[in-house]
Amino acid sequence: MQLLNKTLANIQAPCAASQKAAKERLDNLTKPPGSLGLLEEIAYRMAGMQGNSLPQLPQEKLVAVFAGDHGVVAEGVSAFPQEVTPQMVLNFLRGGAAINVLARQAGARVVVADIGVAGAPMEHPELINCRIKAGTANFTEGPAMSREEAVRAIETGIGLVRQQVKERPALVGLGEMGIGNTTASSAVLAAFSGLQADRITGRGTGIDEHRLQHKISVIQRALEVNRPDPGDGLDVLAKVGGLEIAGLAGVILGCAAEKIPVVIDGFISGAAALVACALSPLSREYLFASHVSAEPGHNHVLEILNLKPLLHMDMRLGEGTGAVLAFPIIESAIHILHEMATFAEAGVSQGK
Amino acid sequence: MQLLNKTLANIQAPCAASQKAAKERLDNLTKPPGSLGLLEEIAYRMAGMQGNSLPQLPQEKLVAVFAGDHGVVAEGVSAFPQEVTPQMVLNFLRGGAAINVLARQAGARVVVADIGVAGAPMEHPELINCRIKAGTANFTEGPAMSREEAVRAIETGIGLVRQQVKERPALVGLGEMGIGNTTASSAVLAAFSGLQADRITGRGTGIDEHRLQHKISVIQRALEVNRPDPGDGLDVLAKVGGLEIAGLAGVILGCAAEKIPVVIDGFISGAAALVACALSPLSREYLFASHVSAEPGHNHVLEILNLKPLLHMDMRLGEGTGAVLAFPIIESAIHILHEMATFAEAGVSQGK
Repeated sequence: MQLLNKTLANIQAPCAASQKAAKERLDNLTKPPGSLGLLEEIAYRMAGMQGNSLPQLPQEKLVAVFAGDHGVVAEGVSAFPQEVTPQMVLNFLRGGAAINVLARQAGARVVVADIGVAGAPMEHPELINCRIKAGTANFTEGPAMSREEAVRAIETGIGLVRQQVKERPALVGLGEMGIGNTTASSAVLAAFSGLQADRITGRGTGIDEHRLQHKISVIQRALEVNRPDPGDGLDVLAKVGGLEIAGLAGVILGCAAEKIPVVIDGFISGAAALVACALSPLSREYLFASHVSAEPGHNHVLEILNLKPLLHMDMRLGEGTGAVLAFPIIESAIHILHEMATFAEAGVSQGK
Repeated sequence: MQLLNKTLANIQAPCAASQKAAKERLDNLTKPPGSLGLLEEIAYRMAGMQGNSLPQLPQEKLVAVFAGDHGVVAEGVSAFPQEVTPQMVLNFLRGGAAINVLARQAGARVVVADIGVAGAPMEHPELINCRIKAGTANFTEGPAMSREEAVRAIETGIGLVRQQVKERPALVGLGEMGIGNTTASSAVLAAFSGLQADRITGRGTGIDEHRLQHKISVIQRALEVNRPDPGDGLDVLAKVGGLEIAGLAGVILGCAAEKIPVVIDGFISGAAALVACALSPLSREYLFASHVSAEPGHNHVLEILNLKPLLHMDMRLGEGTGAVLAFPIIESAIHILHEMATFAEAGVSQGK
């Protein structure tokens, strides 16, 4: 709890003066004011985070992929068996998954952590073994984990940032793997927002209508059994969250404390952002939304966080795939600030 | 007219067998079927265009920026004076505009063509001088150009593809510059769709509410005066279009004839796509939508073309900026097909 509390105390607002100076520069570049839309917003927000009106390109790009299993899969909420979680972890470590392909293209390193996979521990030299326990408990019967386990999982995420993100400035994306984790994410969103489960529950990896109705009833049962307190982020996380969700919330808090921008991927990392922002509303200032996924709850998450997704591509894979697809766009915003000519430099007349 | 007719006759459908084979491969990769959303659609469409189930990365990436002026600016429809068109052309040629910055990052070449700028001809070794005339006529008083000029401008675009796109496979983005060209694009969209001008007219570079109402009335007048025939693409283009819109329509047709994918940028290149697809509905098969802009007409254009934009960033600059931002995403789709492991290769269990 000490590391978490210390991290929360270290999170500060971005630099308003740098942000203002970057906005002024953007308005002097050879384009109608505001005409680059969200690219301009990214540019001045990066200025604020780096405390530099001319923010630098990230020297280190990393996607943190946390894997965890969910006891609730015993209720039959997923199209894939639980064994897929460790199988996909090994696929990440061998470089054959979608996140590896897209991260290579973006020049980002994939860091894979087992924070709570079920079954025997995996052996791989590049796997970060930080397992809190072998999957959460079935949250239709009681809390997914203890409050103490939730804190340890968050602190694991904070620790990962400290150990893995060496260079500055840096850019971090969030990724995850965990059969059943859209169920946990819908439960987390329902707990924080009060939205009804049927509005925010989707097909995850691809379940049919019958199983979707069952998944909704499972989430409703979890909320009734656990009664998570929406005013207490740790309570929501421990009762109806997941270990990978906790790890990602820790990454967000760890990055925010060091003023490192974090790119949310899909619905699960969005749920982690809700947890992080419940613990520290200021951490929201270090978040970018990459895409809006096909999961119906994701859009609600982004509305609550007041973040606008850049990509609308109906993706629903997770792993961090949407986050790294957005990395070049975030770099574009920095290039714009550095390389565009001003009206005066280019001898172009301004509008009236 | 000969080059245009020959080009139209050469446009064929993409290869259905290659597209099907790519789809099958996508379904065997280690992810739930369809979970990469539009990235999968891009991948199999590229397979169809290249006639190769494993499409290759583009060897040449290019953004074709056509500049043209519009007689209708005499009606006071823009926030910027007409002199900005040649000033920005020189900015493109010196590398200081947003399109230069983003194209450099994407590894794309910017090709700038003066197809109809007003005023004295510009001198620059890298400028393509292909001016049909020094700006269109004011289309509130009669046609913007003759039918013969419209054909010549389209053929200029076709010729640019032949001269500039040397390597295969290639990827081409559409860009433009022309004070007043959102007015022409709204008129083109209204003519083809029958939509009322007030629903599809926006603020362009940033006019106020009063001038927006005036712009709408100018477009209504243009349609009443010219009565363009929505069944005749050349008639719409000549009466209420623009020279850069014609050039871009030619680029689309020239690329489609050579099976080169074309990325639409914003509203103006979208209007060019309407013209191209009116002349050759099959040319639509070679188009990708990059983003949906802040211009209210752009979404209607993409709906008519049945194309889904990847980026939602409230951009409204043009120049090809949205198109080149989407280039890395199109390349991502190809990387996915080449580099992801299959379920069998990775030893991952499939869903049920």
